[in-house]
Amino acid sequence: MLRTGSALGVAVIGHSFMGKAHSQAWRNVNATYDSTLVSMRVLVGSNPTSTAESAAKYGWEESSTDWRATILREDIDIVDICTPGALHAEIALFALAHGKHVVVEKPLANTLAEAEEMNAAALAAAERGVISMVGFNYRRIPALTMAQRMLAEGRLGQLRQLNIRYYQDWLVDDSAPMTWRLRKDEAGSGALGDLASHAVDQLRFLTGAQISSASATSRTFVTERAGDSGPEQVSVDDAIWATLELDNGAIATVEASRMATGRKNSLRIEVYGSQGSLEFDLESMNFLKLYEASHDAGEQGFKSIMVTEPEHPYLDGWWPTGHVLGWAESFTHEIRDFLAAIVSGIPASPSFADGLAVQRVLAGIEDSATQSGARVKVAGAN
Amino acid sequence: MLRTGSALGVAVIGHSFMGKAHSQAWRNVNATYDSTLVSMRVLVGSNPTSTAESAAKYGWEESSTDWRATILREDIDIVDICTPGALHAEIALFALAHGKHVVVEKPLANTLAEAEEMNAAALAAAERGVISMVGFNYRRIPALTMAQRMLAEGRLGQLRQLNIRYYQDWLVDDSAPMTWRLRKDEAGSGALGDLASHAVDQLRFLTGAQISSASATSRTFVTERAGDSGPEQVSVDDAIWATLELDNGAIATVEASRMATGRKNSLRIEVYGSQGSLEFDLESMNFLKLYEASHDAGEQGFKSIMVTEPEHPYLDGWWPTGHVLGWAESFTHEIRDFLAAIVSGIPASPSFADGLAVQRVLAGIEDSATQSGARVKVAGAN
Amino acid sequence: MLRTGSALGVAVIGHSFMGKAHSQAWRNVNATYDSTLVSMRVLVGSNPTSTAESAAKYGWEESSTDWRATILREDIDIVDICTPGALHAEIALFALAHGKHVVVEKPLANTLAEAEEMNAAALAAAERGVISMVGFNYRRIPALTMAQRMLAEGRLGQLRQLNIRYYQDWLVDDSAPMTWRLRKDEAGSGALGDLASHAVDQLRFLTGAQISSASATSRTFVTERAGDSGPEQVSVDDAIWATLELDNGAIATVEASRMATGRKNSLRIEVYGSQGSLEFDLESMNFLKLYEASHDAGEQGFKSIMVTEPEHPYLDGWWPTGHVLGWAESFTHEIRDFLAAIVSGIPASPSFADGLAVQRVLAGIEDSATQSGARVKVAGAN
Amino acid sequence: MLRTGSALGVAVIGHSFMGKAHSQAWRNVNATYDSTLVSMRVLVGSNPTSTAESAAKYGWEESSTDWRATILREDIDIVDICTPGALHAEIALFALAHGKHVVVEKPLANTLAEAEEMNAAALAAAERGVISMVGFNYRRIPALTMAQRMLAEGRLGQLRQLNIRYYQDWLVDDSAPMTWRLRKDEAGSGALGDLASHAVDQLRFLTGAQISSASATSRTFVTERAGDSGPEQVSVDDAIWATLELDNGAIATVEASRMATGRKNSLRIEVYGSQGSLEFDLESMNFLKLYEASHDAGEQGFKSIMVTEPEHPYLDGWWPTGHVLGWAESFTHEIRDFLAAIVSGIPASPSFADGLAVQRVLAGIEDSATQSGARVKVAGAN
Repeated sequence: MLRTGSALGVAVIGHSFMGKAHSQAWRNVNATYDSTLVSMRVLVGSNPTSTAESAAKYGWEESSTDWRATILREDIDIVDICTPGALHAEIALFALAHGKHVVVEKPLANTLAEAEEMNAAALAAAERGVISMVGFNYRRIPALTMAQRMLAEGRLGQLRQLNIRYYQDWLVDDSAPMTWRLRKDEAGSGALGDLASHAVDQLRFLTGAQISSASATSRTFVTERAGDSGPEQVSVDDAIWATLELDNGAIATVEASRMATGRKNSLRIEVYGSQGSLEFDLESMNFLKLYEASHDAGEQGFKSIMVTEPEHPYLDGWWPTGHVLGWAESFTHEIRDFLAAIVSGIPASPSFADGLAVQRVLAGIEDSATQSGARVKVAGAN
Repeated sequence: MLRTGSALGVAVIGHSFMGKAHSQAWRNVNATYDSTLVSMRVLVGSNPTSTAESAAKYGWEESSTDWRATILREDIDIVDICTPGALHAEIALFALAHGKHVVVEKPLANTLAEAEEMNAAALAAAERGVISMVGFNYRRIPALTMAQRMLAEGRLGQLRQLNIRYYQDWLVDDSAPMTWRLRKDEAGSGALGDLASHAVDQLRFLTGAQISSASATSRTFVTERAGDSGPEQVSVDDAIWATLELDNGAIATVEASRMATGRKNSLRIEVYGSQGSLEFDLESMNFLKLYEASHDAGEQGFKSIMVTEPEHPYLDGWWPTGHVLGWAESFTHEIRDFLAAIVSGIPASPSFADGLAVQRVLAGIEDSATQSGARVKVAGAN
Repeated sequence: MLRTGSALGVAVIGHSFMGKAHSQAWRNVNATYDSTLVSMRVLVGSNPTSTAESAAKYGWEESSTDWRATILREDIDIVDICTPGALHAEIALFALAHGKHVVVEKPLANTLAEAEEMNAAALAAAERGVISMVGFNYRRIPALTMAQRMLAEGRLGQLRQLNIRYYQDWLVDDSAPMTWRLRKDEAGSGALGDLASHAVDQLRFLTGAQISSASATSRTFVTERAGDSGPEQVSVDDAIWATLELDNGAIATVEASRMATGRKNSLRIEVYGSQGSLEFDLESMNFLKLYEASHDAGEQGFKSIMVTEPEHPYLDGWWPTGHVLGWAESFTHEIRDFLAAIVSGIPASPSFADGLAVQRVLAGIEDSATQSGARVKVAGAN
Repeated sequence: MLRTGSALGVAVIGHSFMGKAHSQAWRNVNATYDSTLVSMRVLVGSNPTSTAESAAKYGWEESSTDWRATILREDIDIVDICTPGALHAEIALFALAHGKHVVVEKPLANTLAEAEEMNAAALAAAERGVISMVGFNYRRIPALTMAQRMLAEGRLGQLRQLNIRYYQDWLVDDSAPMTWRLRKDEAGSGALGDLASHAVDQLRFLTGAQISSASATSRTFVTERAGDSGPEQVSVDDAIWATLELDNGAIATVEASRMATGRKNSLRIEVYGSQGSLEFDLESMNFLKLYEASHDAGEQGFKSIMVTEPEHPYLDGWWPTGHVLGWAESFTHEIRDFLAAIVSGIPASPSFADGLAVQRVLAGIEDSATQSGARVKVAGAN
């Protein structure tokens, strides 16, 4: 058991969707894994009443509206940032500067400049033993963790083609009203930052390769929606399509859409290599499909592996064979790994550098889309 | 919000598989739903050291090895029984006698006689406002709750055929060693009590009908396994097959096996009515397949509904659209409903009477199997 | 190439559904396989006009209403019987007596007595080099032929459980009118003879085992339907359920229904052995699912093999890799094998003895159903 | 019945894969549909011996090595061109000039110039009552014909996104030898002309829209293969990826690959509209998945329609409900429609103009790929 000494004190900043999901992870991690003990000290939000209510519901000892004061508390070791992206940089830089371990929800930041600064701060803090991580939770879906391990072992041979797409459909109805998520100045981008960021992270995670260049198209299908004071222009993308070159010679398509009618939360991944293939869909997240060219002729096919067994990543903490996990468990796994990094002193993954690399690819996609698809080199790529 | 006054004090008896799963439900129910607040007071086990460790991990305030003393504590309102079946009756009777609300894991008891006594005690306690429930958690899988509602509305017309089968494969290997689960005197039965009990409960739950009679076959494929002191006889069934008559005129097959190679935890349900059909598999528990004969000719088919939307049962407490749940969430739902029953004073479901009814059907199946399949009337059925 | 000498002359008796399907097989067999050349000489029916029309459409040289005269023609070598079951025995006995090779659609006959007589005649004729076969065409679905070969090689280890069910839904609507198929005196039985016969044949084919005994239930859900002169009693089963013992120690369920809403033509087969499992559904007939317990722990799962490759049975005659076949191709395969038997003199399979064995099992199922499920020994079984 | 007067005489030019498939269609069309009667007069090939053998196998009256003489025969009404693409133009122009009805396998020609000339000739011939058609047989897969009809009725609302991809894997192995198909001067292109042509035709067929522009990438993964005299350069693409703009405002991705390990013949189509979605895969060609946003909230999902019923396109000629068709039946449907066009005098579809339009899109894709993905306007588009 890793647990030694007193429990680590945690503060979560933000208590809407992600704050709730992360709270569940902090609440369950010790029951699931033999992790370092944690104390759920403070939940931080802007509205004192609703933050206090959330804190009570989600199991936090206290609530606060002052993230700076909270971070400065001596009994806070870990800062978990679940705010909107515009605040990520300021909070993370402050926490790192004060020696607190930081996990920040994806995407790392709203701008490349912020991401660069955060990465620099994380590298500096790491020298003082401070751990930082960006929360691409899908790396901790057991089927995808397993896929990554198989790919790292070279099980599929030379990678040639990948398709990664993240489709949702909550904007299908053109009478759905305007929201801040559809304004570029507030949200940064649309499906690109929200969904394609996961796809690009998976692409990097699964292949271990650099993304060299992008050729992309983006589209806003419903250009105007009902705002509070009449029709308002939608200034972000509804969907994007990109064809990426990887430095290992593979070609990957990345697609994201909030208009793919009928797809509720479909992150679908296909990997084709010279020796085999993998297929995954987040809507059926307990399964990984594997095709191996080495099987006897006449007995080849996609094998649907139920990733719920003791041999599978993260499953040791849960239930006996065959008991499926849900989406939220990915956060428990993420927090377990983050705690293990803190205890071991080994840097956590994905790092802020990973978060920055994803954003450079997103920037390349956006650039290419504004240039009618002309291929754009990704900053920092070889 | 239902929460008023002080939190209800809970004790869980038993801390292996089911104790861990129930602990997770108690730990998360308040974060998920606006339920009555609960305090996780005592986890009870037989071994003081391991029970204390489990209590710390799972979030309990205290641990104990004395279930009687724990039940008698004034700050304990709810007793949740997760022990092996042989202890269910004694603990439940004691708790009910002392006015504590009781939830007991399925199956209700190891013998029909115990189940009868427990049911009588629950009925008597109900008159004093004491709530009791048996933990058939699969009633709280959202897709199955939804199926039940559709059936209750008559959506499938007159029911004709059902297939419910629960297949696992953990006994496939004939070199797997002897365990207490394979001894009749300790386990009562094999796949019958362990797996077919869920199937029979679903049959009753989904149809709302009585099961009138059974024609059944059972089989032990591996009759001898390696015990601590040499080969030992397996005295329970590996698999059972039953064809049941329902009092609504339908015929149902119920199958259970621990030898169905490749099926990890497959509770598969099919319902065929004059107006449509339903299909479900626990291994893909977020989906319900619906066929409606009323659709236009040429456009009929099985529709795969992702039961992860705000309109679906239990989903309001969780995440936005399309985020899948896992097996363990069924217990959180179960505890929510149990708390709602306590607050409202409306009896909880499934009741001890339901648990008793299931066991009468299992007894009928066992009887028929010993009579070479001759049809046997189920006790208590019309 | 097998083709030597002059083409074999063929007559098909019957020109409705099966006559049309068999005609397609005769028309295409030489284009598909290097089989003995055939001449499509005579199509026989009872109505001269419609038979002549069918003959012209289906590619026959002539039509006739006299099956005896047709069989006696010197230029007829092969008699293919596609009439209703009541005529099978008379025609087959006549053809065999006159030295013609005979293929007869399943089921072999309407009564056990007829089937016994036909089998005796086929055995006698075989001594004179006359080939006979019963047309269980699903043995020639490539995925099922492949399944049989894998099982014969022992690939699944010791067989334990099988589920074979044949579900259709064309009788779901209780306002559908009376037909001869629902009268016992004309049709013999309902789903039992029509659908369960295929299921039982597959059970024998796949396992190579004898079926020892049956415990069964049958049901007529709609007991009265609109006839030409008012309501008329339905005298055959709508559905049957049987649990069969095999002489290899396995247990098999066989189900058949014409009331399984939404199942259009679903012959679903599952085989569970100590080393692996197989799964098949006729509605997706180009796929066979295989589970192998020998795969690495953590990489086990059902592999969906697309049975459309050069390595697969019967595929050599068709198209390049990945081009799916349809239901009707099973008859082309059947005729190819029948022609190969004629040329080689090696008895064809399934033989009349196989057809008789299936009917003995169906009789056992029927007997048990009339005795409330009491297990009945199958005639002729060990 | 359409059949009047004497049968139409048919010649097929070419007797390898497509010649065999078309022969099957000619052989079966009259047995399946009440079409104009046809006489299978001449099969034409270059090698007299093998052509004669094929003619005998496939049911042709005669064989020939002289396509010009064959076309000039008075008893030849229809010329069906199944040769390699390089010969399409010359044969089709000759046949049209001599007043013969012409069906030519896809793609229409190897060069845009040829396609333009063929289209002009077809338009001129049409004025003299001569029918011409290009053989995009997938328009006659019942599920896709049905999909087109639903889209034409506006069932999915405004179309927004489409994904059409055609994946095969026969080039996965980099030790597979060089063939003419991998030489640009002989084959024209790789996956682009062979596979993407089908995808682009489906895109035009399903949407009825013009394709305005293309942004594309192409890749040859294995650049050198073993030829007869040492290593030889592969000069065509292994895979292409394109993002297309449609004049109805939709965006479509088109992908084609011969390197998608495990995909044997997977033409996968997804259509997303404001009111619903469709999904199809050629490997499961008897099913069409339909999602309708108009279904009740909580009951939405992809419905898997088995396209094997009397209500479905082309099914009237085949078997009773639920009997699946295979790939080759698409040609029988194609020939039926071609014959109906001849009898009615109504131009056949897809026309040579459609074939030309597809090739213009392929040219646009190729152009963009050579310009690093920069968006290219498709010739002839608005």
